[in-house]
Amino acid sequence: MKNTLFKLLVAVAVLASASCAKSAGDHPSLILTKSGVEQIRQQLGSVPLLDETVAATAALVDAEIALGIDTPVPVHFSGGYTHKRHKQNFLVAEKAGMLFQILGDEKYAQYVRDMLMQYEALYKTLPVHPQKRSYAPGKLFWQCLNDSNWLVYMSQAYDAIYDWLPANERELLENNLFRPFADYISVGNPQFYNRIHNHSTWGNAAVGMIGLVMNDKELIDRALYGLSDDGLAFGMKDDDGGLIKVEGQKAGFLANLEEPFSPSGYYTEGPYYQRYAMYPFLIFALAMHNAQPEMGVLEHSDGVLLKAIDALLNLSDADGDFFALNDAQKGMSYYTRELVSAVNISYHYGDRNPGLLSIAQQQGQVLLGDAGLTVAEDIAAGMAEPFTKRSVNLTDGANGDQGGVAVLRARGEALASVFKYTAQGLSHGHYDKLSFSLFEEGDEVLQDYGLVRFVNIEQKGGGNYLPENGSWAKQTIAHNTITQNQISHFGGDYATGSKHHSELHLYDASRADVQVVSAKESNAYPGTLLHRTQVMVAIETLEKPLLLDIFKITSEQQNQYDLPFYFNGQLLETNFAHQQPAQLEPLGDSHGYQHLYTEGEGAPAGDNIAITWLNEGKFYTLTAAAKAADELLFARIGANDPNFNLRRDAAFMQRRSNEQNTLFATVIEPHGNYSPVTEKSHNPRGRVSNVEVINDDENYTAVAFDIADSGQHLFILANQNTQLSDQHSLEIDGQIYQWQGGYFFDLR
Amino acid sequence: MKNTLFKLLVAVAVLASASCAKSAGDHPSLILTKSGVEQIRQQLGSVPLLDETVAATAALVDAEIALGIDTPVPVHFSGGYTHKRHKQNFLVAEKAGMLFQILGDEKYAQYVRDMLMQYEALYKTLPVHPQKRSYAPGKLFWQCLNDSNWLVYMSQAYDAIYDWLPANERELLENNLFRPFADYISVGNPQFYNRIHNHSTWGNAAVGMIGLVMNDKELIDRALYGLSDDGLAFGMKDDDGGLIKVEGQKAGFLANLEEPFSPSGYYTEGPYYQRYAMYPFLIFALAMHNAQPEMGVLEHSDGVLLKAIDALLNLSDADGDFFALNDAQKGMSYYTRELVSAVNISYHYGDRNPGLLSIAQQQGQVLLGDAGLTVAEDIAAGMAEPFTKRSVNLTDGANGDQGGVAVLRARGEALASVFKYTAQGLSHGHYDKLSFSLFEEGDEVLQDYGLVRFVNIEQKGGGNYLPENGSWAKQTIAHNTITQNQISHFGGDYATGSKHHSELHLYDASRADVQVVSAKESNAYPGTLLHRTQVMVAIETLEKPLLLDIFKITSEQQNQYDLPFYFNGQLLETNFAHQQPAQLEPLGDSHGYQHLYTEGEGAPAGDNIAITWLNEGKFYTLTAAAKAADELLFARIGANDPNFNLRRDAAFMQRRSNEQNTLFATVIEPHGNYSPVTEKSHNPRGRVSNVEVINDDENYTAVAFDIADSGQHLFILANQNTQLSDQHSLEIDGQIYQWQGGYFFDLR
Repeated sequence: MKNTLFKLLVAVAVLASASCAKSAGDHPSLILTKSGVEQIRQQLGSVPLLDETVAATAALVDAEIALGIDTPVPVHFSGGYTHKRHKQNFLVAEKAGMLFQILGDEKYAQYVRDMLMQYEALYKTLPVHPQKRSYAPGKLFWQCLNDSNWLVYMSQAYDAIYDWLPANERELLENNLFRPFADYISVGNPQFYNRIHNHSTWGNAAVGMIGLVMNDKELIDRALYGLSDDGLAFGMKDDDGGLIKVEGQKAGFLANLEEPFSPSGYYTEGPYYQRYAMYPFLIFALAMHNAQPEMGVLEHSDGVLLKAIDALLNLSDADGDFFALNDAQKGMSYYTRELVSAVNISYHYGDRNPGLLSIAQQQGQVLLGDAGLTVAEDIAAGMAEPFTKRSVNLTDGANGDQGGVAVLRARGEALASVFKYTAQGLSHGHYDKLSFSLFEEGDEVLQDYGLVRFVNIEQKGGGNYLPENGSWAKQTIAHNTITQNQISHFGGDYATGSKHHSELHLYDASRADVQVVSAKESNAYPGTLLHRTQVMVAIETLEKPLLLDIFKITSEQQNQYDLPFYFNGQLLETNFAHQQPAQLEPLGDSHGYQHLYTEGEGAPAGDNIAITWLNEGKFYTLTAAAKAADELLFARIGANDPNFNLRRDAAFMQRRSNEQNTLFATVIEPHGNYSPVTEKSHNPRGRVSNVEVINDDENYTAVAFDIADSGQHLFILANQNTQLSDQHSLEIDGQIYQWQGGYFFDLR
Repeated sequence: MKNTLFKLLVAVAVLASASCAKSAGDHPSLILTKSGVEQIRQQLGSVPLLDETVAATAALVDAEIALGIDTPVPVHFSGGYTHKRHKQNFLVAEKAGMLFQILGDEKYAQYVRDMLMQYEALYKTLPVHPQKRSYAPGKLFWQCLNDSNWLVYMSQAYDAIYDWLPANERELLENNLFRPFADYISVGNPQFYNRIHNHSTWGNAAVGMIGLVMNDKELIDRALYGLSDDGLAFGMKDDDGGLIKVEGQKAGFLANLEEPFSPSGYYTEGPYYQRYAMYPFLIFALAMHNAQPEMGVLEHSDGVLLKAIDALLNLSDADGDFFALNDAQKGMSYYTRELVSAVNISYHYGDRNPGLLSIAQQQGQVLLGDAGLTVAEDIAAGMAEPFTKRSVNLTDGANGDQGGVAVLRARGEALASVFKYTAQGLSHGHYDKLSFSLFEEGDEVLQDYGLVRFVNIEQKGGGNYLPENGSWAKQTIAHNTITQNQISHFGGDYATGSKHHSELHLYDASRADVQVVSAKESNAYPGTLLHRTQVMVAIETLEKPLLLDIFKITSEQQNQYDLPFYFNGQLLETNFAHQQPAQLEPLGDSHGYQHLYTEGEGAPAGDNIAITWLNEGKFYTLTAAAKAADELLFARIGANDPNFNLRRDAAFMQRRSNEQNTLFATVIEPHGNYSPVTEKSHNPRGRVSNVEVINDDENYTAVAFDIADSGQHLFILANQNTQLSDQHSLEIDGQIYQWQGGYFFDLR
């Protein structure tokens, strides 16, 4: 009787509450939905990965509840206590909200309410953050970016307890915390909010998420379409030198969805930032899908978000580590928490690729929502398969017409070459047109340096970008591509670089034994045409695939050309003499050269140069055609680096001076292995020799090389007419080679 | 009927064969025995690790049989084809013999016979090996050492098919191959055979093994006791500068068993060579045990062989990699094939430590014999447990009175310090008295460089020792210990170094929270007493254990003292200013200094210096008491190394000049961790500060340091009277500290 009365009272209270806030009773409605919660509750106890996720989440949140809530007055940079505490708070609050919905335990709702109330009390007192290093300082954090992270997560926490909260408490939070918070990061900071940039995506998503919870159409519109009048001047730059306002560019979430993603799903800043930017894209698109499916945000722009996940997953090595294109901290992989939602959503709303399930298994958790439930159920049903990657060619640019990135892969991921012929990549872009990096399974053989930043490590500049990121990592010489006259591409000028992109010449991965990508760059050095071609060869008689690399340069004047290879590992042997200078001095004084020491100098002993090195128990030999006047340099990173911000890594460099048109032809051959436990070396010597330029004119470039016991192999590239239907013919030493399509490859 | 007749004929033939060679019918009798074979045959199909071993062995041998036998005329060094082929031959022949016994398939016996016959034909034609770089060239290989390897294995192959071979074929093999072979490596090369050295152990075992198969008492005696008259002069040296003949020294297998092993089982050359030397010791001791148990060879010298296995396994990090004491190639671990027999024998004939079974599991194979059968059966019975290591103090020297090695371990292997106060270590010894290396789990934090050799990698000097092994790796400055006046210990003179050893002052690992080792060295620099003490502290309030390192120097004159720490990883921060020189120049011109570049120079900013670095996702802070005049150097290996034989690794060095008596007090504190996937840094800052020398006189050395939130901790070492029963008292700042035993440690 007492019980019945109580229930009645509660029902009346709920009705009363609903009447004064029209959307109460409809929550949760963002990532968790009412029907989703119902399904999850039914499946609890029968789907292992779901149970594990809930258990791990509860363990984390319970520990935080025991610790008590702390919302300190903001003081520190990233890496410092107040930064880390506020970050931990929003992560935990979102999880606590989920647990309240799934487990129904009110302690979680109370925890979220109490924390939000503390923030309400704190936020209204806060000035701008005391650390003033950002172009857009936040209030809780030193950047609006982190404030936006907070709101994206806190919106979900608020959504979870919305119906449970009394109306007056909701009013308090919305008036004193959420609306001012959303306004500060948007109208208060248009230079942050109204751009095409991952920062803005976070800002847009934050405003949109809280708008959805509060059912505030104005905020939702502000999220989707940006600020109509931001009062910003053209030409403003951010901390990284990125342009803030570009003429003719739209703003807001939908514009950010259209602009930085190409139609094939490549995100113009590269996979490291795509992984970071992906979360707000997906989480807000999913929230829009749940709350206002008729808007079609998840499917916007020909389903580019789902394509983007697929592209991102393919831009990784065999260990799942993302390739370091542009600014990128190495070691970030698709096992990061930030990709749990991406993988789950890709599976649930995409084509249910069973390879995604094996990634989800290794992630060890699922998104607590519809998508995560499907993933956990299908894993439990034994449907997971290994995630297999193929060669891909991804366009760059909103319309797919600004160059791209190709990854050639042979024999699974036995060899993978990442070939970059993109646009600049916004403010995180590097000046490395036609550069590449090479991987054997999960090991980087020829490296891209990555960024000079120790993310969230306070001792290194508060965890922010270090000066050497600009003076070294972004410079052309830090990459495996041509530097002309010791000057970076576009003179290292961001505005100039942002206007241009390379052009695809040929991509053909139709054969399993030979795959080709070729692209041209005509703007990096006005008056010079750079044309690079990579051929991955995986023929039967070869233990491992190899890479033929052809760099053709045509110029209006004589120049110096430097082609470095940043090889990881220890040098074993060269086929030419080289000397170590008595003292180590910087190789130059600007454009990154000031950070390289010359460790060795030599000259070719014949028509070919070759070096062999050992890395992670595997052997590699680089063999290249040489000219007598070539300088051969061994370099070491670390000059002008008094604070040891740079790794002391090695490079081998072929330098050709006073040449106008020239061709670099190189074979990189992985072979054999060595174990320090068995102390056995298997195939320590390469089988490739005699890399030879057979022909090079405006129509055809032909390079041959010998494989021991397997004959001479010939590759011919058509420098014009690369369509599959194009007919070609070339006479070499009296023999006529005829073929159809952009290239020829066969035994000679 | 036909069948019965055939069997009868075979039986008659066997009898006939037995009658003409008295020991026929008794084979196999070395590692496999007739009863052992019987047991193994019975267990086939029911013991997984046994079955796996037989299956893997058969797969390997069958592939070799399919390939056909090749016994090429010897041409190459290690790493080259003929070397690798002959090595593969003996490994495969031994396995084929085992398979013949276990599976009864005659194809294996025929394979061994055919190979031996080819060797018979080849060997009698062979001159000394054409590569003349060894002090004892072999015939099949460039060193008698490898020829001995061949005979140790081939003896087992021959033993397995002995009874199966007709007498005339045995005669042929013994007269033309085995006896001349055994003679060549013994009486033909006494400088190789008649020493106390791992080379000789192989030689002795080889001669003894074939002697046992042929039941030749003269050869067995030659193996056990050496050559009575070797005609060698005192003072001869081998390729590595090792003394060949030392006055008063015995030779032969038993002498080698007594001499290089200390009573606690430490092998004076260090674990890398012990692992290599172990196999012939054990295999011949086991053969003697099976063939002539009454000789007690396996139990010789108070069971030192079993103790040696235990010592060896304890001289490894958490991954099973051996500590790099003296010449040692890193990465060698107890999962090597060479330790299968050691682990199996240790288990079967020792105290049946279930931890050994987990190592055997990871080795993935067992010795095909009694010991291996026991191991495989007990693993199948689920008896395996993790192998746990403790702190150990191992004496050096045949009588245990020539110093030693201590390994302090805290919280399992969370922190392990390897402290070396041994004798010279024969020809593979380094000049690094009182040096140490530090490990956190499987990661080397402060490294011992190891050797300069790429074993079996032909491109690097044929896989042999490189010149930099002498000019760098053996020198004192290459180690984490004191170099005085830029001169190596004993002036780098082998003969002098071989006369001396350090002396233990104190070892006490009785407490879990504090463990101490302390030793003195008075001969490395005549007139100077080096006294180093290491204290491993694992108190409750500390996340991880830390190491307090105290280096006390007392000298008759003023000197320069260099104390380097070869830290692995990237420098994050220092608490003092330092500059990078405009050009990198060698730090000196001899004793290893010529191989170091000065990369940074600074001076203390106060009473303490501190550096923090990041390695393998973990943080480390080194904090040391400093004097105003100290020079602080950052160094990089690689100067005067034109062929890139050395790794470009880093060191931090505290240099104190113009001092007579002084004390270096340092705390190395591991803390926190960092993941590039979560990008979270946990505890990036250390908690130790104010390392302070409180007292230092001939009686007591006292060092204090602060641990944040945990107070000041005080360590006092008694420089005299370190017995457990000794009473001590010291007044510091008016407070009297009283204790019993060699040291005091507590909150101050």
